[in-house]
Amino acid sequence: MGSLSVVGFGPGNAVNMTAECAKRFEEADVIVGYTGYVELLRPVFPDKNYFGTGMTREVERCREAVRMAADGKNVCVVSGGDGGVYGMAGLILELAADTTLKVEIVPGVTAATSGAALLGAPIGHDFAVISLSDLLTPWEIIEKRLRAAACGDFVVCLYNPGSKSRNEHLRRACDILLETLQQDRVCGVARNIGREGQSCYLTTLGELRETEAGMTDTVFIGSSRTRNINGRMVTARGYNDV
Amino acid sequence: MGSLSVVGFGPGNAVNMTAECAKRFEEADVIVGYTGYVELLRPVFPDKNYFGTGMTREVERCREAVRMAADGKNVCVVSGGDGGVYGMAGLILELAADTTLKVEIVPGVTAATSGAALLGAPIGHDFAVISLSDLLTPWEIIEKRLRAAACGDFVVCLYNPGSKSRNEHLRRACDILLETLQQDRVCGVARNIGREGQSCYLTTLGELRETEAGMTDTVFIGSSRTRNINGRMVTARGYNDV
Repeated sequence: MGSLSVVGFGPGNAVNMTAECAKRFEEADVIVGYTGYVELLRPVFPDKNYFGTGMTREVERCREAVRMAADGKNVCVVSGGDGGVYGMAGLILELAADTTLKVEIVPGVTAATSGAALLGAPIGHDFAVISLSDLLTPWEIIEKRLRAAACGDFVVCLYNPGSKSRNEHLRRACDILLETLQQDRVCGVARNIGREGQSCYLTTLGELRETEAGMTDTVFIGSSRTRNINGRMVTARGYNDV
Repeated sequence: MGSLSVVGFGPGNAVNMTAECAKRFEEADVIVGYTGYVELLRPVFPDKNYFGTGMTREVERCREAVRMAADGKNVCVVSGGDGGVYGMAGLILELAADTTLKVEIVPGVTAATSGAALLGAPIGHDFAVISLSDLLTPWEIIEKRLRAAACGDFVVCLYNPGSKSRNEHLRRACDILLETLQQDRVCGVARNIGREGQSCYLTTLGELRETEAGMTDTVFIGSSRTRNINGRMVTARGYNDV
């Protein structure tokens, strides 16, 4: 019997990996993941065996990971960010349920926190994380969550805000939020976090509606307490108000 | 002019620090933080200068950090987990706003993801993070957010679920969630993540209401999709349903 772990490597650069994550990769017989992630890892761990497949091949890829681990290999399934946040941890636990494999999840730095760090401190108080991808989630559920988050005055962090085939999703999400929130609500976008072309900017909800967002963007919509302080997006917890 | 960074060191053990976090500590002239965190770091970086103060001394401590950085020192303000999630990042950005210091935030692994990793994959789909501490936040706002999160069918991750002086908060939070959710909703508790005495267990919302939670607990309340799979808490994204 081998071992099976789901390892989040953070935003994409080696410096934001945890020590535990790097150790798992070094000890792995094979690293399994989406080809985009495999290409990010290969320069850092060039001597490893990789098994990469493309988007929408998640079930096949994870079945293969479980099979190899059951066959005696030390298998790392890699996710960008954290494997438990829209990553492969849940699917691996489902697929391994009828084996005796003990699955370990190794946490990583997810885009909500690495994107926040670029922008300032947007999630310094209660926040909701919502994916705008409707590949696996009906759009009505996404709408319901956007409305609930606005109603609860959460900071909202959007994963998968758009792609070539879903270029209207961010605009539709903004329209739903604008039912409750004002146009001037402070927002921020973090792009290519920890990768080439890393950047970020502050904007407003009204302007965000006119923005095209892509696969490498993470979007933050402030709560009523969020401020633009010298170009940084800050949701204060209130220490300084007492 | 020195430098000022807010560095999240993750759940508490060296293996879950990022490489960037360890580098910042090694390069710092002084590490500033809550005494509890200073005591966790001292064995790992024994040769450093530390400036630690107790709970409720956040503003004083962060003012001192800004002053030392403006005086030319390389200052690291440390937060457990991620400094942007209920940490010191927002306060430091507020206090440094009238200086010319460039503040950098170095992200870390926050308890939502490290606690999730222990339990399985509870936040594999949209989730809301709420602190139950009413030291700086009126309880009515916390109640509003709990109701909104339940209404949006989010997985809910609770930080600061209780302490000696707030031993009724978790029960009150569960009662609010039970207005909408059933008693048998899958829940999980992660305790002392990455520290001595680390443990976790699955439970139900009805049982969670009878539980005493402490400062070192992170609590997860599942969404309608969350399942107990062989003792692991899993919110599947739906890959395996297609």
